[in-house]
Amino acid sequence: MTTATSPRVLDHPTREEIRLEGVLHALSDAVRLTIVGDLAREGTELSCSYFDLPVTKSTTTHHFRVLREAGVIQQIYRGTAKLNVLRREDLDALFPGLLDSVLRAARAQGERVGQRAGDDA
Amino acid sequence: MTTATSPRVLDHPTREEIRLEGVLHALSDAVRLTIVGDLAREGTELSCSYFDLPVTKSTTTHHFRVLREAGVIQQIYRGTAKLNVLRREDLDALFPGLLDSVLRAARAQGERVGQRAGDDA
Repeated sequence: MTTATSPRVLDHPTREEIRLEGVLHALSDAVRLTIVGDLAREGTELSCSYFDLPVTKSTTTHHFRVLREAGVIQQIYRGTAKLNVLRREDLDALFPGLLDSVLRAARAQGERVGQRAGDDA
Repeated sequence: MTTATSPRVLDHPTREEIRLEGVLHALSDAVRLTIVGDLAREGTELSCSYFDLPVTKSTTTHHFRVLREAGVIQQIYRGTAKLNVLRREDLDALFPGLLDSVLRAARAQGERVGQRAGDDA
């Protein structure tokens, strides 16, 4: 099966290269938690423009890169669009239950604090 | 019930002040994961000298402060000793299952990578 990816391929860690410390660091930010929560809820590839984030475009790009380099998301060029997808299978295989407990904790905190993560910027 | 704490009291966030982002950041380091793993396993107050860490004393002090300020541990002076204890009750109440999934992930990674976290410093 071939996919219509462009020659521009971004660096990603292999599953074996993903480290817990890097994943936790990538998740330790309100904006990045919002991105990961959206990707988990939608369960499909999303372009960067899908996300309604309270930061500049360059900061958004930075956050996506941190998530990619930690192995939390995969970023794929399709034509001119850069699409993002959660590496749920890799994360669940390496760290069973971790991603779901973080997503639950983020939702619970959002309800408790009464705001969407990132709104206090 | 009174406890023999000295007048020197260290700043700690209340349970309500603890934030998921801060907890994940505090856990995103191999040395701090080792400290938290030891505290979870022993389940009691431990002095800083208990921990066999591959870093200097001042770096060790820094790591304990990060954990305390994030609300992951409580540090209590008893006489001349500074004792550390995991805030498991607070963390489990705020973020059910999170601490255990992180500790499991750290153990699994340690077995997979074949080294104690922090040994690659």
